Amino acid sequence: MFEIIARDAAGRLGRLKTPHGDVLTPTLMPVYNPNIPMIPAKELEQEFKIQILITNAYIIYRTPELRERAKQGVHKLIGFQRAIMTDSGAYQAWIYKKELDVTNRTIIQFEEVLEPDIATILDVFTETNDYNIARDGVERTIKAAEECIALREKEKILWAAPIQGGQFLDLLKYCAKKLSVLDFDIHPLGTLAPSLQNYNYKQVTETLLVTKQHIPPSRPLHGFSIGHPIFFALAVAVGVDLFDSSAYALFARDNRYLTVNGTLKFANLEEFPCVCPVCSKFSPSDLREVDRLQREYLLAKHNLYATINEIKRIRVAIRENWLWELVQERIRAHPSLLDAFNYILSTYSDFFLKYDPISKKSGFFYSGSESLLRPEVKRYEKKLLENYSPPPKAEILLIFPDLDIRFENSPQFRNWIDQIPNRERIHLCLYSPIFGIIPEELKDIYPLTQHEFLNTYDLQLNLHAKSVFQKYIQKNQLKYSKILIFRPKFYYNTNAQKQDLISHPIDEIIKEKDLELTIVSSIEQLKLNLEKLI
Amino acid sequence: MFEIIARDAAGRLGRLKTPHGDVLTPTLMPVYNPNIPMIPAKELEQEFKIQILITNAYIIYRTPELRERAKQGVHKLIGFQRAIMTDSGAYQAWIYKKELDVTNRTIIQFEEVLEPDIATILDVFTETNDYNIARDGVERTIKAAEECIALREKEKILWAAPIQGGQFLDLLKYCAKKLSVLDFDIHPLGTLAPSLQNYNYKQVTETLLVTKQHIPPSRPLHGFSIGHPIFFALAVAVGVDLFDSSAYALFARDNRYLTVNGTLKFANLEEFPCVCPVCSKFSPSDLREVDRLQREYLLAKHNLYATINEIKRIRVAIRENWLWELVQERIRAHPSLLDAFNYILSTYSDFFLKYDPISKKSGFFYSGSESLLRPEVKRYEKKLLENYSPPPKAEILLIFPDLDIRFENSPQFRNWIDQIPNRERIHLCLYSPIFGIIPEELKDIYPLTQHEFLNTYDLQLNLHAKSVFQKYIQKNQLKYSKILIFRPKFYYNTNAQKQDLISHPIDEIIKEKDLELTIVSSIEQLKLNLEKLI
Repeated sequence: MFEIIARDAAGRLGRLKTPHGDVLTPTLMPVYNPNIPMIPAKELEQEFKIQILITNAYIIYRTPELRERAKQGVHKLIGFQRAIMTDSGAYQAWIYKKELDVTNRTIIQFEEVLEPDIATILDVFTETNDYNIARDGVERTIKAAEECIALREKEKILWAAPIQGGQFLDLLKYCAKKLSVLDFDIHPLGTLAPSLQNYNYKQVTETLLVTKQHIPPSRPLHGFSIGHPIFFALAVAVGVDLFDSSAYALFARDNRYLTVNGTLKFANLEEFPCVCPVCSKFSPSDLREVDRLQREYLLAKHNLYATINEIKRIRVAIRENWLWELVQERIRAHPSLLDAFNYILSTYSDFFLKYDPISKKSGFFYSGSESLLRPEVKRYEKKLLENYSPPPKAEILLIFPDLDIRFENSPQFRNWIDQIPNRERIHLCLYSPIFGIIPEELKDIYPLTQHEFLNTYDLQLNLHAKSVFQKYIQKNQLKYSKILIFRPKFYYNTNAQKQDLISHPIDEIIKEKDLELTIVSSIEQLKLNLEKLI
Repeated sequence: MFEIIARDAAGRLGRLKTPHGDVLTPTLMPVYNPNIPMIPAKELEQEFKIQILITNAYIIYRTPELRERAKQGVHKLIGFQRAIMTDSGAYQAWIYKKELDVTNRTIIQFEEVLEPDIATILDVFTETNDYNIARDGVERTIKAAEECIALREKEKILWAAPIQGGQFLDLLKYCAKKLSVLDFDIHPLGTLAPSLQNYNYKQVTETLLVTKQHIPPSRPLHGFSIGHPIFFALAVAVGVDLFDSSAYALFARDNRYLTVNGTLKFANLEEFPCVCPVCSKFSPSDLREVDRLQREYLLAKHNLYATINEIKRIRVAIRENWLWELVQERIRAHPSLLDAFNYILSTYSDFFLKYDPISKKSGFFYSGSESLLRPEVKRYEKKLLENYSPPPKAEILLIFPDLDIRFENSPQFRNWIDQIPNRERIHLCLYSPIFGIIPEELKDIYPLTQHEFLNTYDLQLNLHAKSVFQKYIQKNQLKYSKILIFRPKFYYNTNAQKQDLISHPIDEIIKEKDLELTIVSSIEQLKLNLEKLI
């Protein structure tokens, strides 16, 4: 039912099979309001090639002329031939701050009449600072899920059971565990809207991650209400498979223009920073000349294109394994995204180690100190410091800066390595700004030679490299009789051009007073030293 | 002739008036090869709304059937009614590693026949590590420019004189100064292609900046050969007004798919990460089914859309003053861009102080330690440490963390400020992670209250804040009899929610042993202390 095609970070590219065709995930389900659709369902299907949309069973139920037509099934009612998910009204209960006039049973039975591809139980929104109220919401949600299983009859429908608990991580965990053992197909995480409105990406990301940790990996995770593309890449990196957006329509109604870097005011625009079919055809002044409804329609179309664009980019990134690289760019769109990244990657390091692929099609790009938190770096550190021993005959630890040596065509490296006597007694290691120290036998592990970094190092990078080095030495110092450091004055860059080595974290080791180090700065000196030692 | 409409960073939005209409800058001039145009000129004009393209006078001259039609003028020859720039063949001389079979005089006279809107002298490409060869190229370029002035007759044509000098900054400066006093309208910077091919963005950015420093601000700067959108934002931030792209076509021929984050191989794509009119209509498998020429044509169209998209985004960013924010994202697309940013911003701080607007329409977003190099931060630091004195009656320096106080609705702040006796003897300052220390009288200076930062601070941020604070104290310590620090346990965030203050750079001052500080952690304590002192 849900097949995983490719993985990157804790995200995956998947295929969700539904009675109305396969849905490629991650995907965005446009919210379709059956009373006031901004973009007709036919256009969503044909022009936008939308594979799944989400509409609302409660709204259909509450609208007499729509309820009457429910027996046709929701696909006919809306005029959409691909997959449809129905929501249940929990969000409406929160928005209008009142108990709904329908029960979970009514909604479920009504959804069975509508026969969408995915139906949702009537869960309880848990936006509250009060733990007890949230716990009560969770319990009621679990009861609704149990009731659903007892009630439902149509086998074709996939059922979604939202995880509730709001800001309380232990409640989310509890709810996720309880619902995981029940027969459901999809788990939305509910109650995200309030934190999203406050740019509280740290909380949103953490609750998504905790939910993801406690639901079966075979069930897609739906980040309910996440409709702004600014957050998609990070959300997918923690495991979200489905998004839904009413933002494309609501923002349009408010004359707001969506971009992946943030929202712009239509009123301020003198040109559109976009080349989607709408923005390629019309200018802001064109849109000022049409009537309000037509303008809203066109803005909604642009907003939807901008939203879908990011989804497509993310799917390509997963296939090609540059999702973290995309995330590193996206988190610059707002400092609270960078905050969320830093917090999540430091707090849930093991989570990412579990999911992130150990080998990738694309290189690792360093983008600032946050890159040191990535699973590729942590995994290697763990391997080096917990599971690695130097070769048995290694006596002399010889450290090269990785700048020079990581390129097989480095003239210095080639000349020297070919001439070395008693090779097995010398343990050659690279000192790397990102990975600290790389024993030569490990250098083919991803991404030790597949990464791009800076030529100018920052303080944090230097401290990091030194700390890994120190831990390595602490663990392995008895193995070595001597530590030799090759700190050349120049090196050969990726284009085989000779370049001065102005500063490299290796200088940080050299400053180290507690270690007995011999430092050499030319291949000649190095040879002399080795001859004496061997 | 060139009117500046808006500014941001060292970039500007401008209007270049030509005989064939106004050109909004920054802009991209698609390279139009009159022998093998990938996209017909008519489509460039009508579908892409291209306001200016660049073609090559030397190629037209060398092609008998085109040379014959030169008298029609280049607009008729190509079939394009908007502005046209002609290049001169200097690039071809470099590509084919030979002297051209035409002279500067021939090309100039031929360009006068073609009558483009902008014509280029036959300059000398200076890709060399040999200073003398580069100097010779510069002298020959200057001579070619002088010859152009003596020769040219048609007044309507704008003339472009490329700055040469290659990697040698003093030669660039010399060439720019020499050409600046001659009657030219536009200055391209030549010889960028080799460094661009090597991802040597540091060198490209520095040579652009040095050129910009030494040409008149009233003349547009053209970054010759910069055609990949990955670099546009940073290039505009240092002052580039015009780009030209053959990349859109060359990459298409090579089955490469341009995106603003980098180049993808068409062969690897299962879907297009884009919503331009081409990618909205066709899928990669559609393109695999058409013939090679049609595929190249469609890929070229996508590539051009992707390129133009970034230009549009940049123009909107300049108008709304978030160009640095865009640059902060873009430099994550490759570590050499981040390197270039760090180097340029640290080395040429005064350059940016000169151009960057002192007040902006958008807030300052912190995106990592590189943000500390931005002119907004440097300008404030300069003001604070060089041109500011505390109020004459100030005796007691009282420091608040800015988290709490910068929001006018902060309950703590409001309660306390209303009750304070002898207000003028107390000098209230905010301790800010980014700006170090903000005296209350200065707090309305941009971007002291218009910035978004992190809730989790990094080492570099802490060190930076502390260093500004220390410099401030060093300069002003005799003014104060007492330093009081308010280090609360909680504060009120932007949503007026109470939040624990877990860590703030203010803790760094507290650790400071050399200063006599009184630290208080509640408003009550603060009041008691102030009562004693006043």
